[in-house]
Amino acid sequence: MERMTPRTLSGFMELDPKNEARFQKMIDTVSRIYSLYGFTPLDTPAIEASEVLLAKGGGETEKQIYRFQKGDSDLSLRFDLTVPLAKYVAMNYGSLAFPFRRYQIGKVYRGERAQRGRFREFYQADIDIVGDGSLDILNEAEIPSVIYRVFTELGLARFVIRVNNRKVLTGFYELMDLGELSGDIMRTVDKLDKIGTEKVCSLLADLGVSQAQVKAIMDFISIRGTNGEVLAALESYRGKNALLDAGIDELRTVAGCLGDFGVPESHFALDLTIARGLDYYTGTVYETCMTDHPEVGSICSGGRYDNLAGYYTDKSLPGVGISIGLTRLFFVLQDCGLLSEDFPCAPADILVLPMTEDMSPAISLATALRARGVRVQLYSEKRKFKARMNYANKLGVPFVAFLGEDEVAKGAVSIKNMTTGEQATLTYEEAGDAILAAIGEAGNVRPIRGA
Amino acid sequence: MERMTPRTLSGFMELDPKNEARFQKMIDTVSRIYSLYGFTPLDTPAIEASEVLLAKGGGETEKQIYRFQKGDSDLSLRFDLTVPLAKYVAMNYGSLAFPFRRYQIGKVYRGERAQRGRFREFYQADIDIVGDGSLDILNEAEIPSVIYRVFTELGLARFVIRVNNRKVLTGFYELMDLGELSGDIMRTVDKLDKIGTEKVCSLLADLGVSQAQVKAIMDFISIRGTNGEVLAALESYRGKNALLDAGIDELRTVAGCLGDFGVPESHFALDLTIARGLDYYTGTVYETCMTDHPEVGSICSGGRYDNLAGYYTDKSLPGVGISIGLTRLFFVLQDCGLLSEDFPCAPADILVLPMTEDMSPAISLATALRARGVRVQLYSEKRKFKARMNYANKLGVPFVAFLGEDEVAKGAVSIKNMTTGEQATLTYEEAGDAILAAIGEAGNVRPIRGA
Repeated sequence: MERMTPRTLSGFMELDPKNEARFQKMIDTVSRIYSLYGFTPLDTPAIEASEVLLAKGGGETEKQIYRFQKGDSDLSLRFDLTVPLAKYVAMNYGSLAFPFRRYQIGKVYRGERAQRGRFREFYQADIDIVGDGSLDILNEAEIPSVIYRVFTELGLARFVIRVNNRKVLTGFYELMDLGELSGDIMRTVDKLDKIGTEKVCSLLADLGVSQAQVKAIMDFISIRGTNGEVLAALESYRGKNALLDAGIDELRTVAGCLGDFGVPESHFALDLTIARGLDYYTGTVYETCMTDHPEVGSICSGGRYDNLAGYYTDKSLPGVGISIGLTRLFFVLQDCGLLSEDFPCAPADILVLPMTEDMSPAISLATALRARGVRVQLYSEKRKFKARMNYANKLGVPFVAFLGEDEVAKGAVSIKNMTTGEQATLTYEEAGDAILAAIGEAGNVRPIRGA
Repeated sequence: MERMTPRTLSGFMELDPKNEARFQKMIDTVSRIYSLYGFTPLDTPAIEASEVLLAKGGGETEKQIYRFQKGDSDLSLRFDLTVPLAKYVAMNYGSLAFPFRRYQIGKVYRGERAQRGRFREFYQADIDIVGDGSLDILNEAEIPSVIYRVFTELGLARFVIRVNNRKVLTGFYELMDLGELSGDIMRTVDKLDKIGTEKVCSLLADLGVSQAQVKAIMDFISIRGTNGEVLAALESYRGKNALLDAGIDELRTVAGCLGDFGVPESHFALDLTIARGLDYYTGTVYETCMTDHPEVGSICSGGRYDNLAGYYTDKSLPGVGISIGLTRLFFVLQDCGLLSEDFPCAPADILVLPMTEDMSPAISLATALRARGVRVQLYSEKRKFKARMNYANKLGVPFVAFLGEDEVAKGAVSIKNMTTGEQATLTYEEAGDAILAAIGEAGNVRPIRGA
């Protein structure tokens, strides 16, 4: 047979079993926390009609889209989960209950230039709350709580949710007589972290912003401090622009609910430099940064928008949403050495090694343990003892069960704890108890190191 | 703004929230049971280089493949999870521990002719056990146990796992001097359920099978009865062909282990008519049929193969695997009225309705309940009471919490059980206890009706 060398495309993440176990745990955790907040799962196709997917017009993204012909159909792979949501809500408007809260965790596709840490296929994990005509500010206030809980449950300890409000920014630029330039200015200021103050000032000047205005902008976005201090500083701008005032009120509400929502001040910062690039955000905007790894940028972002699906429907569908790029997050965590080495990655809790010709006792043991929820691999290859133990070690199973003539005669099993090396002969039931207790403890280990 | 009517492509399943909740539960259940048997999760890209994906040569499938150009790359969407597994194992041969047991649940793509119940994007849920050079028959004996446990946990009661062995068939056809035609004959006999005995006989005659041979074949595949009776009947063929004898031994081993593996005889049948179309099966083959819906065909199939990845590597990689077409299964269950109406589909266990201006108590209640694992939606829109209750009913939440001045003053909450209509004023802790107890009970409801 002619053979070809198999390969996986560059830009496509394909993990080894141990890392895949960590990644699966991350997906499970994110989906569990999203569920705790009353979001319903949704699953839309990865392929859509191009005219539907690109109804909004793609801009930058359009070039990256995987688009192709199949028969008479012009098809595209989804490049995010927001456009499919807009499609879904517009199509099912009559049958959905609003506010509609959905989460979706799925792969999206962007044919980006191959680059370290850039992926062409990657998981996004999104939540959105979509209102029918209106949506209360409390929904925006709830989002930091979801972010906080997700990353805490994943095991990340040192991160900050940075929050701003586009009404504050737009209002401020209106106040500065820079309303028409506000989009360009925000996109420029958004680069502050990356390119520094000096470069931002010069770019602003290029936009036609006067020196006095540049100074006012810099003063404004330099407002720092505790949430209380930032809000107090903002009060000095109150009463000059209605939009700005509304934005300050919203920020105050969002910051004011944090405690009740269980978000510690240490993990939340009002930050007037945050704008998010996308034009469609209109209220609260969010970024989430790893305290010790600012170079990574935001690992969870989003915001409030006024119109989810204007290109599909005349219904007003305001909403708020965030997205976690799980594939990139995993890559970054690995890169920063933040994946937990203690996380249980083995495919089974116990490997059952039959030492007799008759396999019946080993099968019965495996069946009994599985009935109790223990993940069991039955090893049935005819190999030497050493090869079997090497296999157990390679899998990293925490327990091995030996079933020899002696054990079978006694209706017992010898269980070896592969971490401590201890071995004990137990009844099937005792063995199950011991393993379940160990599973319970291991279940508390998070995929991310708490550093 | 110019608007376009959104649509989802035909052949692509996109479920409403309630059915998506059922479908998610099915995926979770299948993945949990696969894990219980020591299979490790794997996730390969949906896109592969065409030359890699089609290395084996596609045959029928090749026409259905979504294949396209992106830049210089000739790309294809995966059409099953077996070829990506072969790629993965061949690529990572050196680092994997064999037998390598993996499960993968993911979408695959086939541009089939649009037809009711046929999907172009559908989930497959596969397990495979891949050996290095050899793989013990006990692995084949374990598979029916996985199938039994998966469908039982999903809630399906009336199904039968039908098992045969390709060595028995190939050996028998060799014995009949029909060795060279055995592939064609098997494919013909495989259609028995669909086209009937008469048509099969005439097709066999067309292949050049003599009348005496046709009769012998029909006698052979007409062997019916309990596992014991089928095995006894097969014994009369023993001693005439080595392959046939080996196949009989394997069938005997597989059937003999059922009891220890926890599979009741009622759910297992040796069936000599089963062959599976694919050429690469070489040992035990499996089909799973719904007792009351034979028209549906097999809902879980697979078998033993000798060579997983011959087109990628010269290593001998024998294995055994099965696949569940989850999307089609879901469609069929819906069609047969077998989805459980009692399954809890609501996005939250409780909807918290604040009745005071101050939202703080409602937020605190939501936070406290979530900390205990209760799925809570906080309703924060300013709507009339009736609109709020309509919303609760539309979501189908089992509980609603009212927080008015009275409750807040007492540090209590009024909980309404939406099923019974009963209402009680409880402390936060009592409310949590009551809801958790109800969740526990609801957790036992399976997505499929036990009929």
